[in-house]
Amino acid sequence: MSEKLTFSASAAASLEPHLPPGEAQPSKQPFVTLTFATSLDSSLSLAPGVRTHLSGPGSKAMTHYLRSRHAAILVGVSTVLADNPGLNCRIADSTSQPRPIVIDPHLRWKPRSTDKVFDICRSGDGLAPFIVTGLSKDHIPKEQQELLQHHGGKYIHIPSTKSDNDRMRFDWDIVFQVLLAEGLTSVMVEGGGQIINSLLHPTYHKLIDSVIVTIAPTWLGKGGVVVSPDRVCDAQGTPQAAARLSQVSWHPFGEDVVLCGKLHSR
Amino acid sequence: MSEKLTFSASAAASLEPHLPPGEAQPSKQPFVTLTFATSLDSSLSLAPGVRTHLSGPGSKAMTHYLRSRHAAILVGVSTVLADNPGLNCRIADSTSQPRPIVIDPHLRWKPRSTDKVFDICRSGDGLAPFIVTGLSKDHIPKEQQELLQHHGGKYIHIPSTKSDNDRMRFDWDIVFQVLLAEGLTSVMVEGGGQIINSLLHPTYHKLIDSVIVTIAPTWLGKGGVVVSPDRVCDAQGTPQAAARLSQVSWHPFGEDVVLCGKLHSR
Repeated sequence: MSEKLTFSASAAASLEPHLPPGEAQPSKQPFVTLTFATSLDSSLSLAPGVRTHLSGPGSKAMTHYLRSRHAAILVGVSTVLADNPGLNCRIADSTSQPRPIVIDPHLRWKPRSTDKVFDICRSGDGLAPFIVTGLSKDHIPKEQQELLQHHGGKYIHIPSTKSDNDRMRFDWDIVFQVLLAEGLTSVMVEGGGQIINSLLHPTYHKLIDSVIVTIAPTWLGKGGVVVSPDRVCDAQGTPQAAARLSQVSWHPFGEDVVLCGKLHSR
Repeated sequence: MSEKLTFSASAAASLEPHLPPGEAQPSKQPFVTLTFATSLDSSLSLAPGVRTHLSGPGSKAMTHYLRSRHAAILVGVSTVLADNPGLNCRIADSTSQPRPIVIDPHLRWKPRSTDKVFDICRSGDGLAPFIVTGLSKDHIPKEQQELLQHHGGKYIHIPSTKSDNDRMRFDWDIVFQVLLAEGLTSVMVEGGGQIINSLLHPTYHKLIDSVIVTIAPTWLGKGGVVVSPDRVCDAQGTPQAAARLSQVSWHPFGEDVVLCGKLHSR
């Protein structure tokens, strides 16, 4: 069994205004928290698929504390392929586990019984993932469907749209509606870069209830996986800031800082 | 006369460990402070030459307070061409003015009597610039030399090297030595992007005594002028973090945060 983490009560208290209510309220949308850690030059990692230790140990405990406060944690398939992550919550006194959601439009991930997330599931320390894909059931290999079902997970089909660069994309309104229909009243979006950048676009600000960013005092340098949304221009074609947080608070945390804020006033 | 700014004593106290000593100590190098303000996606501005209001009013007062604590302030020619800046110190009780240093290898700036920096100089609210160039005296138009001299400024010739992309560059060791020889015992480097990125490269960390970065809670989006040093790899070609700060402190400051740290332990 992996080590358990603790997160100080005072640090937890400072995050409380930015977290979903303890008791889920009836709502038309899940409570969505966008959270990630970057360098000063806004990189998540040194290069795609390269695991990069950015933030200090306190930050790891915070991530797991945040997971304990959400019904689901959502990542892109690139994160799964790069990191073979556990996608569970390791906070010592956590009473429930979040549901991992993997966004995988083209089904690039071929789940195997030996993947860490299933190991953890079998030992009772986490839940099996729901995989959101653009492929319909009859295009998904049967053994993958069975592996997922056996662990309590499943594939969820959502119609995808082609984006400008001919990549399949989901409409985030639909993704979150489908997750709410599954009873997932709060979702913590953890990455990777493409998912974060698409949600930081003004189109989707209304869906995001809370943003929690950890910044480490390092510059990774050019070539990293960068968080920066697509350019936004006004009607005259003049560039504008793509996103600005309000109700901002900064929490120094070891050598890092944690920034909390809101993208809209819901 | 332009409005005077005040900076709170408590905020000044929190910056004190990161500033040059009040009395200049005999030293082989000037005390160099690297300071700038970025968005969360590490942009200085929305696009080259586009003035971008990133940080709050407190940050402006801080910049002028920092200027009051340095013998010189250094900017790249692009900043001068884009902003027509005053390059003086507007702190209410400041007793001296910093010397503006403009890094202009190819002499892209053609100073004119109407430029703000000369206006300010004539009204006694600031000093005329020293312009550091790769061109020798006989390649500089005589009227420009006279304009500068008339206001108390001058051209300083430094041999430049061609960089990979065939742009002239200066060796920062030489630039700071030349400034020290001019009696400038402390230098505040303010930008722009090219100058900051070159000084964040490991080659020059030994020259930087202090780093002070203001971060505003906004994402400007792709296409901005980005602070991110060139990629650094180890002997095996594996990418490494280009720079990491030590002795870090974070100071929330209105909606922004101010990060102070050191690039080396001198």
